[in-house]
Formats: sequence, C-alpha cells, structure tokens
Amino acid sequence: MVSGYTAYDISLDPRTLTELAALPGSTLPEVYAAVAAAYTAAAPMSSSSGAERAGWLEALATAVEAAVEDLVAVADAETGLGVARLTGEVTRCANQLRFYAGIAREGSFLGATIDSRTATTPDLRRIRRPLGPVAVFGASNFPFGFGTLGNDTGSALAAGCPVVVKGHPAHPQTHAMLADIARTALAAAGAPDGAFGAVTGFEAGQALVLHPQITAVAFTGSQHAGLALWSLAASRPVVIPVFAEMGTVNPVVVTPAAADSRLTEIAEGCVGSFTLGMGQFCTKPGLLLAPLGSGLATHIAEALLAVNPRGPLLTPGIAANYVAGIDRLVLGGAVVIGGVVDPGPGTAVSAAVLAAAPESIQPGSPLLAECFGPVVIVVEYPDTAERDRLLATLDGCLVAAVMTGGDDDPDAADLVGQLAGLAGRVVVDEWTTGVATTWAQHHGGPWPSTSSPASTSVGAAALDRFSRPVTYQNTPQSALPAALRDGNPWRIPRRVDGRIQPAEPEE
Amino acid sequence: MVSGYTAYDISLDPRTLTELAALPGSTLPEVYAAVAAAYTAAAPMSSSSGAERAGWLEALATAVEAAVEDLVAVADAETGLGVARLTGEVTRCANQLRFYAGIAREGSFLGATIDSRTATTPDLRRIRRPLGPVAVFGASNFPFGFGTLGNDTGSALAAGCPVVVKGHPAHPQTHAMLADIARTALAAAGAPDGAFGAVTGFEAGQALVLHPQITAVAFTGSQHAGLALWSLAASRPVVIPVFAEMGTVNPVVVTPAAADSRLTEIAEGCVGSFTLGMGQFCTKPGLLLAPLGSGLATHIAEALLAVNPRGPLLTPGIAANYVAGIDRLVLGGAVVIGGVVDPGPGTAVSAAVLAAAPESIQPGSPLLAECFGPVVIVVEYPDTAERDRLLATLDGCLVAAVMTGGDDDPDAADLVGQLAGLAGRVVVDEWTTGVATTWAQHHGGPWPSTSSPASTSVGAAALDRFSRPVTYQNTPQSALPAALRDGNPWRIPRRVDGRIQPAEPEE
Repeated sequence: MVSGYTAYDISLDPRTLTELAALPGSTLPEVYAAVAAAYTAAAPMSSSSGAERAGWLEALATAVEAAVEDLVAVADAETGLGVARLTGEVTRCANQLRFYAGIAREGSFLGATIDSRTATTPDLRRIRRPLGPVAVFGASNFPFGFGTLGNDTGSALAAGCPVVVKGHPAHPQTHAMLADIARTALAAAGAPDGAFGAVTGFEAGQALVLHPQITAVAFTGSQHAGLALWSLAASRPVVIPVFAEMGTVNPVVVTPAAADSRLTEIAEGCVGSFTLGMGQFCTKPGLLLAPLGSGLATHIAEALLAVNPRGPLLTPGIAANYVAGIDRLVLGGAVVIGGVVDPGPGTAVSAAVLAAAPESIQPGSPLLAECFGPVVIVVEYPDTAERDRLLATLDGCLVAAVMTGGDDDPDAADLVGQLAGLAGRVVVDEWTTGVATTWAQHHGGPWPSTSSPASTSVGAAALDRFSRPVTYQNTPQSALPAALRDGNPWRIPRRVDGRIQPAEPEE
Repeated sequence: MVSGYTAYDISLDPRTLTELAALPGSTLPEVYAAVAAAYTAAAPMSSSSGAERAGWLEALATAVEAAVEDLVAVADAETGLGVARLTGEVTRCANQLRFYAGIAREGSFLGATIDSRTATTPDLRRIRRPLGPVAVFGASNFPFGFGTLGNDTGSALAAGCPVVVKGHPAHPQTHAMLADIARTALAAAGAPDGAFGAVTGFEAGQALVLHPQITAVAFTGSQHAGLALWSLAASRPVVIPVFAEMGTVNPVVVTPAAADSRLTEIAEGCVGSFTLGMGQFCTKPGLLLAPLGSGLATHIAEALLAVNPRGPLLTPGIAANYVAGIDRLVLGGAVVIGGVVDPGPGTAVSAAVLAAAPESIQPGSPLLAECFGPVVIVVEYPDTAERDRLLATLDGCLVAAVMTGGDDDPDAADLVGQLAGLAGRVVVDEWTTGVATTWAQHHGGPWPSTSSPASTSVGAAALDRFSRPVTYQNTPQSALPAALRDGNPWRIPRRVDGRIQPAEPEE
C-alpha cells in the first residue's frame, strides 16, 4: 500500500500557473522518524498541565504573528487568496491558538470527576487522558485557519497530544514555513521534543494513518479523501478514530415572509457568502430553497453581476473539478441563470447561480453532491409539504440556515427544528460562512458531513476528539494524575460526588 | 443479507439441558414496525425534558422491582445464575434506571453552552440533541444489569432516544417478560408510544443495524459479534456509530511487595473474582503477572480447590467455547495447574488456573484472546523489563488492576500509569469485577475492548453516546430548545460566556 517512492508537491501560482517550487514528499524513514519523535513526546505531554500547554500554544501564536509578512507573501503566491484575506487569517490562526490555550488552562476539558467511597461503591476518579500522536491533514482552503497550525493542531496540542501534520499540496511552501515556525517556537517554549512534526506528500499521509503509534486522525477536506482515510484507518489491526470534516451541500431555506420582505437583501447576502474565498469554504451555502415564484435565482444573478467576483481557485485540479461539477449539476437538471463572464487568468472560474425544479432533487441526484467553488443552486418550493420533502432528501451537512421575515415569522421555529436534524449548526438570518472559535461552537454534522458526527473541529469541544476517559479505582494519591488528587492542585473545575465544583481561584 | 426466515430462540435450562420454550424470531415486518414506532416516538422524546424522562425511568424501575419474583424465576430457569444473584441483579437494574433518571433530571448531559454576541462573534448556543432510535443488543451474562432494560437501554432513554432491544438468545423468556414490563410501565408513565420496542432473533438484529431509521447501536458481548455489527454498520450508506463493549483479557499485576506480604490473600481474592458468575463477566481478571518464584498459580489452585466453585454456564454454546478456549490456551503454551473436578451436570465446566512462561506472550498469541468462563492464567515475570514488555504486548482492555504491598509500594505509581494506557479502568488493591454505576465510572477501553474507546456503557457519560451537539446561531428565543433559552427554564447547569453556571434551585 505504501512504497518508498518520493513524489513532489508542486508549489504553483494559481494566477499564472507558474511553478514556484517543487518540494519532495517525505520518505518513509522521514515519516517514521516524525512519528517516533511524537511517540517519545506523548508521555511528557500527557502529564503536562493545562497551564504548561497554554504556554506552548501562546508562544506559538506569538511566533505566527511575528512572521505574518513572510507567511502571507508565500501563501498568497501559492494560493492566490490575496494579502488582505490571508493577513486576517494569520490573525485568526494566532487567536485560535490562544483560544485553545485558554481552554487548556481552564481545565474543564479534562472532565475530572470524583466519586467518594460509599457503603456500596468504591472510590472512583475519572479523567480524560490524551490519546497519543495525532495525524493532522491540513485543509486546502484555509492555509492558516485550518492548515498546518489550524484548529486541529491547536486543539490536539491543547488536549496533550503530539501532532504530525501532513501539509496540503495546494500550499507546500506555506506548510514548510509554518512547520519551521512551530518547531522553533515550541522548543523555545519548553514543549517536549517531537510535540510537533510535519510531513509532505500523499504517500506520507497514507503511512501516517497506518502507523501503529498514530492514535487518531483529523482531516478537513473533500468527502472522497476523507472517506478514503476513514476506510484506511478502519483496516488497521487497531482501528483508530478518524475525525474527517468533509464538504457538504449546505441548505438555506427562505421563508415566504422573508421572500416577501427582503428578497434583494437576501440575494446580495447570498452572493457575498457563496463567493467568499471564491466559494472554497466548507460552510458555503450550496442550495437555496425559496418560495415558488419568488424569482430568487434571478435576483442572485443580478447581484452577482453587480459584484462580479473574480479570482483564481486554489489549484488547477480544484478549478477542473469545479467545471466538471457544474456540468454534473446541469446533467442533473439544473439550469445556469447567471454567472461571471471573463473570470480572469490562471485557475479563475466563473461564479454562477443555477436553478432547478424541485423534482430534480431526489435521493442520489447529482444536485446533492458538493460542487466546491463559487456556485449556488436555487430550488423554488410550491408549498410546505414539498419544502419538507426537499429537506428530508438532503444529506447531513455542516451548517444550514433559515432566512425569515422577522422574529414573528410563523415558519421559523419549525424550520429550525427540521434543520437541527440535518446539520451541525443552524443559523437564522445570517449567512453560513464564518465559523467563530468559541465555547459554544459546533463545526461538524451528521454523516457524511463528518465521519464522527458528535465531534467538532472548531471550538472548545474540539479537544474531546483527542482523549479518552480512564477511571481510577481505589488508587492512592501518589499514583493518581494531579487533576484527580485531593485538594485539586491544578485548581480546575471538577464534579465531586455529583456536584459541579467550579475552579478555585489562586490564593 | 436478510431473509424473511424466522428461526427460533430456544429457552434452555442449562442445568438439565431441558428445552423450556421456543420463541420465534421476529419477522422483518415486525422489525420494521418496531423501528417505525420508535421513529414516531423520536420527535416527542427529543423535545421532552430531562425531568419527564426521569419520570418514565423511575416508573420503569418500580415496575421491574414489582415483578422481581417472576423475573428471577424465569431468568434462573433459563440462565442457571441462581436466585440470590439474580434477585440482587434485579435491584441493580432498578437502581441503574433510577441513576439514569437522576442524570437526565440534573441536565448536565445536555452540555448546554451559550456564548453571547460580541463585536466579532455571533450569538451561539450549543446543546446535545438525541440521535433518534437506538438498537440495543442485550448481553448474555447479565440478563438484568446489561440486558433488555440494562445500562444501554436506561442511558439511551435518559438521553431522549427510543430504543429497540434485540434480546440475547441465552434468555429469551426473560427478554420477553422485561419487554412486556417496559411497554406497560412506560405507557402508563406517559412516555410516547414506541419509546421502547423489542425484537428477537439473529436476523432481526441484522435488520435493525441496517435499518435507515436506526441511528446508533449499543452492544455488549464477544469481540466476534461486536466487530461483525461494527462492520455491518460501516457498510451502510449512512454509517452509524456502534458502541460495542467487548470481551477482553483483563490483566492484574502483582508487585514484588504484594507477593511478599499477602500472596494467599491475593490468591483467594483472585478465585473469588474470576469464578464470580462462573467467570462470565467482561471484567473477569484473565491474566495475572506475578514475580518470578512467587508460585501464585499454585496458591490460586489451592484456593480454588477450597472453594470448589460449581455451576452451569449460560448456554451449551458458551460451555463448548470455554472447553475449546482452554484447549487453545494449552496449545499456546499454558499448563493447567489446578481445577475443579466433577463440575456438575448440564453446561457446568471446570474452573481452572493455568500458568504460562513469559515467552509464550507474544503478539498474536492465543493467550491474548479472551476465554469466556472461569479460567485465569498466571505468568511470572523475572524482572521489571520483562513485566513491562508483557504489558506492552497486551491488547486494549476494559479494566486492569495492580496488587500492591501498600501505599508505599515503589512499583504502584509506574504500574498505574502503564495500565492507564492499556485499560479504561485501573484498579488498585481491589478486584476488577464489579462495575458501579456512578458519575465517575468508565466502562470502556482501547480497541478492541470497545469499538469506540472514548465511550462508556456504564455511568453518567453513557448518555453521551446517544446524542450529537447542534449549535444554534442568532436563533430567536421561540425557535430555541428550552434548555438554551434565556432565563434557563429547565434550571440546568449551563456554561454561559465561558463560565460554568450550576443549576438554579427551584424557587
């Protein structure tokens, strides 16, 4: 399954298709060395306190920010995402790392729980322990936010796991630069050697997933690639969890009251959302359900023409898939209503709005498969029954939205309830793009939007993916993890004899 | 894969091998009807409060206790587990249901989290929503504690999921009686129709796992059966989680200090633990590592002779597998040191203690496969390095123990740390059998002891298996689940803007 062959990740300027660099894929010995170093780091990281991990992550955030100019220059050259967007994304990356530092320091993620001995039950103390080395597959579309030092890496380090990142071939130089920053910054901050490692290339990724010392996989990307990794992990003698966050068709339902009161605003908002990052967002609205006769597709086409978004896609492969995807949508019964003419050089493609009849939405329809890029489909529903049939036909997705006519919209509550059964996040009167890194965030959703629907790749609960609970029974203080000892030496929130005890302040 | 054929579950007295009854397996229309009823119940159960669910579970507990005499009589006839043990287990079953009622009422399991709008982030509110109909596969060895109304059913109902239980063929009449009790008691307590359903037969179980409206599977039993269900679920178009708690070889390490100070006590405790329920416990100690020259196997053989445990195994199939399992252990290099002669009629087998050289413990050795029944293997280790090699060779397990020479035992802390990497529960100076249902319990462990190592089938966290989080963004109060509304109408613990807010008392 894995050979010793070393292919190259080609760094390409998507605006000009000029080759910028060719980075060799990691050899198998290099992969094994990275995992061996991570394995060595696992024990000291497991026993480190949340406060120690927070220090490492904060140092990493500072180092990333310090390198912002170089990072943005390299990333812009090989992604074409633009200096403004990428500069903001570096800030976001640093702030995410600080957020996970805060979660580690706060300590609730450990789930520390103590049940004192009773007449019928022993002394039981439960804590979440880090799994060990985690393989992270960076995303193509957010080189900083979901890339080499993105949410997966930040939350895994916060949970106490060493990380080996396989960089995305869409931006190999950015990956290499971020990896250098991480190694240097983490070492300087006192993190164990091997806390962070990086590899390159398709075969290195396969080897990571199959390596017996890798304990979990985190992935952001397409369903095709995510499910392939999930199957590979399921073939191991010791199966490990794969947390794959995959592309989906995210639906937006426009209620009659919304269509009556603010159709132009919705059309403009839609264009802003589905062309953001040239549509290369996993939270892009993909399918709009609007009342029959609303003419929403035409409104969107007009708004699209006014904005005329132009720009390259990340890679020639993504651009070719987008064009083929539009063809599949048309074969599936969709009609192009409007689009951008003369999109530009390189990998640029035409943003487009399509319309389809409700009958074209059936199980297995090509319209239910994600088309990664700046396209949205509008389907007009004649009545509530058909609207609900359409919703019931959709696959599980990361996010879904309702556009209402205001807080007294009679359709709002019912639609929110239906969408909660379909998506990991339900949005009302805002657009689906944009995923804040907070305590209450959930970025995941039913199969096939994620391979592990109860998990999130963003927010405080992202740490939970990389640990498993262990209960200690009748264990002497000296043999217990610090977080479970009497006196609460780490001053973290715990549940003791059934009651929540918030963290004790430092004296 | 599934035919319309109806086989029979045979109720058999294991003491006499007399056939007591033949219960027909559910037909496919019966399976579909049970799932359809569960599907109908899913929506009202999802919106029910924890307090409502608690009421249903407490009514169920009362009904189970009220039927204790009939239940024990039927269960004893078809399992041979004895009236005393089974009477205690009915109490345990009822108390577990009350425990899960308490967890539902307390409300932390919802994980309610609210982040207020800030300058850069929207209003986000997160809660765990029940998945929908859950298929439960009851265990053979605990007809009440882990059976039709055991931990899986109790925690799934508490989490707000309808349940369809496939009863274990070792006690089909007990299954039928418990199912009748559940349907009647839940209906009388006001639970939605379809909250509980029951089916019988191997093919009914397969059909359940493949049914598109089943959203999760909970299983307790052998690795063979558990992994088969896991593979079946992974073959679905929409893959669902399988929480399989499977048999393992649970290790117990005896330190030199323990061997020096209390070898006889350890030998007697070991016999009590590994012959409890005639060794038919998933927490049975399976492999003892003792210092070289301690002669622990001989001591256990003497203690075994003194107790002379006799009794039937649950089924002829389990007895045949036990005998074959002993043969495999011997082929793998183990030697029988002592056992029970003339174990008794029916399915009775000889409890036995075996010894093996450390060299016989290698990856893939037959000694690393569970032998379900009253047998334990003793391996003497010459030094710490060989002890640690043996531990590193073992598969993931549900529980592991250390027998120390007291709190100042120099080996204790290191061994607890090693075992925490191997097991879901680590026990010091107590035996592994016995799983208390408390907040801090974890009954699970690394692959292959469970198919989902971060999950537990016992304790407060057992509910987490049957829900997935959803985040509501910018959602009006009227469309939010009650648990997330301003004012905390359910008075549950929540995290608001990062801070834990314990439940507010009723005014």
